Amino acid sequence: MKLIIGNRAYSSWSFRGWLACKQSGEEFEELVVPMFDADWEKRREGDEFAPSLGKVPILWDGDCVVWDSLAIIEFLADRNGRELFWPEDDGARGMARSMAAEMHSSFAALRRELPMNVRKSFATREFEGEVRGDIERIMQLWAQARARHGGTGDFLFGDWSAADIMFAPVVTRFITYGVPVPPFAAVYMKAVLSHPHVAEWIDQAQDEPWVIEKYETPA
Amino acid sequence: MKLIIGNRAYSSWSFRGWLACKQSGEEFEELVVPMFDADWEKRREGDEFAPSLGKVPILWDGDCVVWDSLAIIEFLADRNGRELFWPEDDGARGMARSMAAEMHSSFAALRRELPMNVRKSFATREFEGEVRGDIERIMQLWAQARARHGGTGDFLFGDWSAADIMFAPVVTRFITYGVPVPPFAAVYMKAVLSHPHVAEWIDQAQDEPWVIEKYETPA
Repeated sequence: MKLIIGNRAYSSWSFRGWLACKQSGEEFEELVVPMFDADWEKRREGDEFAPSLGKVPILWDGDCVVWDSLAIIEFLADRNGRELFWPEDDGARGMARSMAAEMHSSFAALRRELPMNVRKSFATREFEGEVRGDIERIMQLWAQARARHGGTGDFLFGDWSAADIMFAPVVTRFITYGVPVPPFAAVYMKAVLSHPHVAEWIDQAQDEPWVIEKYETPA
Repeated sequence: MKLIIGNRAYSSWSFRGWLACKQSGEEFEELVVPMFDADWEKRREGDEFAPSLGKVPILWDGDCVVWDSLAIIEFLADRNGRELFWPEDDGARGMARSMAAEMHSSFAALRRELPMNVRKSFATREFEGEVRGDIERIMQLWAQARARHGGTGDFLFGDWSAADIMFAPVVTRFITYGVPVPPFAAVYMKAVLSHPHVAEWIDQAQDEPWVIEKYETPA
């Protein structure tokens, strides 16, 4: 099994795909395709690495090519057991799947205006407009998941799940851009940052040689 | 089990959620929340119908609330059998899940500029720019799925699957706006329109009393 990813520092979807592979317990090779402005655009046009738009992450395994992080989660859940990725309880799983799907299709302002950079931590500030709306919606989702299904565990649905994988790059963005959050969210975010897979990704990102200037200044 | 949907004529995500419920074989009640411009916005603000943004579709069943069409598909696949929704072969399933996920997160121009209206059929025309890019990408995906995994069946992966459910509102848009397509795609689109669930939805949409003017003119 091989996973094609972008820069660890900047590629939030790669982060999710990689966390999914780690969670599966399967051995996998990594191929890092750094996102440099010019070359990256060229590679996307050339469609060099996949039968897709040239986006990362892409999971290759024999005849299987899976080119979306949520699809990678479900593909690996099929193969290694759904219980590794999703809560057992139907209500919790329905909510977890809905939250993961909402993360997958929404929060455009947050993604656009606060690009991931796990190497940086800018000054705390308040946000307005659509970004603020996205942040408030995420607080609402996290609070509901924790209150209804968190139990005594540290994560959204108690144990580490695909919902946490989908929101992990949001946690790092909130740290990077100093987003003010209520205490329950700060506790959850600390647990995410302490998860061994997350910590490993962030640690490895520190040594990457590639820098994209536009991601290195506060939003 | 209850499914909350918007107008049959216009709500493409409702269409997908409803097709998923039909495919599950489970009995379900429908609650139609028509999208009128003013009231609809008011209801969305009031967050009256769900612990969500007020978007449709929403599946309710006892303690379970699932508020995204892709999550509804997976939720119903868990409960009624994955084989009802996804191909058995790993490679086919990986591709089907990737295509469904890409439909879920992408094709913003197509969705914005060619809103669904299953009651209308405007004159054939060519499209440019981002919409054309979306159309070409969809042709590429459909062609690859049919060529690799279509076999002797009529649909993207042979039998009717969640991939077809996700693309069904694209098929109706292509009809509505007279998008020129190659012959293989026309054959596939005809099969989708002839599927009994799709035909039932479109048929029922004809009698809805609600009309939103902006959806009633060509893009």
